[in-house]
Amino acid sequence: VGKPIFTSDRLYENTPPGVVMGLAWTAMGGSTLFIETRSKSSVAAKVLNDSENKPAPAPTGTLFLTGHLGEVMKESSSIAHTYSLSFLAKHRPENSFLSTSHIHLHVPEGATPKDGPSAGVTMVTALLSLSLNVPIRQNVAMTGELSLTGKVLPVGGIKEKTIAARRVGVDCIILPSENKKDYNELASFITEGLEVHFVDNYEDVFKIVFPSEKL
Amino acid sequence: VGKPIFTSDRLYENTPPGVVMGLAWTAMGGSTLFIETRSKSSVAAKVLNDSENKPAPAPTGTLFLTGHLGEVMKESSSIAHTYSLSFLAKHRPENSFLSTSHIHLHVPEGATPKDGPSAGVTMVTALLSLSLNVPIRQNVAMTGELSLTGKVLPVGGIKEKTIAARRVGVDCIILPSENKKDYNELASFITEGLEVHFVDNYEDVFKIVFPSEKL
Amino acid sequence: VGKPIFTSDRLYENTPPGVVMGLAWTAMGGSTLFIETRSKSSVAAKVLNDSENKPAPAPTGTLFLTGHLGEVMKESSSIAHTYSLSFLAKHRPENSFLSTSHIHLHVPEGATPKDGPSAGVTMVTALLSLSLNVPIRQNVAMTGELSLTGKVLPVGGIKEKTIAARRVGVDCIILPSENKKDYNELASFITEGLEVHFVDNYEDVFKIVFPSEKL
Repeated sequence: VGKPIFTSDRLYENTPPGVVMGLAWTAMGGSTLFIETRSKSSVAAKVLNDSENKPAPAPTGTLFLTGHLGEVMKESSSIAHTYSLSFLAKHRPENSFLSTSHIHLHVPEGATPKDGPSAGVTMVTALLSLSLNVPIRQNVAMTGELSLTGKVLPVGGIKEKTIAARRVGVDCIILPSENKKDYNELASFITEGLEVHFVDNYEDVFKIVFPSEKL
Repeated sequence: VGKPIFTSDRLYENTPPGVVMGLAWTAMGGSTLFIETRSKSSVAAKVLNDSENKPAPAPTGTLFLTGHLGEVMKESSSIAHTYSLSFLAKHRPENSFLSTSHIHLHVPEGATPKDGPSAGVTMVTALLSLSLNVPIRQNVAMTGELSLTGKVLPVGGIKEKTIAARRVGVDCIILPSENKKDYNELASFITEGLEVHFVDNYEDVFKIVFPSEKL
Repeated sequence: VGKPIFTSDRLYENTPPGVVMGLAWTAMGGSTLFIETRSKSSVAAKVLNDSENKPAPAPTGTLFLTGHLGEVMKESSSIAHTYSLSFLAKHRPENSFLSTSHIHLHVPEGATPKDGPSAGVTMVTALLSLSLNVPIRQNVAMTGELSLTGKVLPVGGIKEKTIAARRVGVDCIILPSENKKDYNELASFITEGLEVHFVDNYEDVFKIVFPSEKL
């Protein structure tokens, strides 16, 4: 047990569908944190022999987690899963991917313990990207706690996270509105040329990272 | 790791169906505590091929919890779930939402540990609001332990909770009858202009927060 | 965190079906302890498509517990559940309520830890009251450990429990026969006017609290 020093802080140059760049904050400073999602298998509707057209049992999607996640981050992923289900039910009612799939969500690197609620918006974005099979806008990083109804709550470490995003070449970051004051305190050499969005609700995030998807 | 100080103590200006404002009491003083509920998926009745009209298996609703809840608060949510099921069976027998749904109940913020039984009435109200798909009366906050049959038991921190409710603009609070003496000891500058209701049973709460729903 | 002093030690003036008053004994003295039971949902028999008349799976009732119960009290409730099932199978073979229901048993107040085996007879009485949908005789309190076959075993704190029962207006108490010597040592101002029954088997309890039910 023991790990080599990070050779790069940016695991993906381009993120495919289901992968989104988040931002983490530790005692060592800020860093990127990628959320990876893949479908394990489809939960096909169990259609029973039914000559009278009675309704079949409702399928139920599941979420499976790896990446040495702490309890708060595990709960945060459950919140992201439930919110993503209700987001699709509202905006993409024809899309049953999430409600019929066993999803595996992983946060590299596997040996590094991670915790906290601030990857909420990142996890929802990964799940929706996978469900829509659409990659998100490239070179965007985000951070924010999510409530069950999609409100975006403030998080810590805005300075460290912004520096980490700049270091890896991110040109757009998405932050909770309540962190605007923290961002405005940053020196201009950190924020110069960086596109920043402050959001109150997850739907604001969606519009930024899926510009070609109507809402 | 680490959180900014709250800039606002009120997460929702208007609460949608399934969300209710409670009041919490900690060593740091009183604060609002929102209960959020959403349906994860419907548990459709598993209707089997049955040419002889035998009864199908009864569907069973479930409750899934997040929000860093302690053991007493987890038990409290189970009591709220069972009571809400029996409340609907009695007063809305045609409403099978709760007995056929997987419900997700979350208490923001995800990294803050919470415990105690005093959100019982708040959780029942959130579950009934979600089941009826009706928002509760706005600007109301409540606190009270619930027994399995719907009795409302006294709680601690009435002073701190009342101050917290005033601070965020609540104009009506619902308290257990046995806390009337605690409320009456508060200075008039705290209680002036505040509508207060003392309740013995959950049905009293229902009448206040769902004024257009007959009981 | 923190609770006001009880203004009343008697949660129920009249107990509905499924609720029974027990007696507890702590370092603080005796007190009443109510056992509350409710059905969460019916476990309907799973009738399968069966053209060959194969037997359907047997339905199974379950018991779900809340109230900050310790391990001994949890085991005690399991004993009460099994005994109640066998009691109904013997005396009410047509009553399948308990074998087909998910029962929720709660012991208020939720934040107070409770343990010990002495609520055995109280829990059986609550389960049978719920199953028969008949309230028990009012103003009765009871204490006693139960064996799996219905024997009533002695318990501690007879003096404190008797005083607690008198304080809340109970006029009849049911005690294990082996505690008769403890009761007879009590001062007459405690026991005067109090109807007391000493029992060896649960069936003795049943006759006292369900006077209109034949056995």
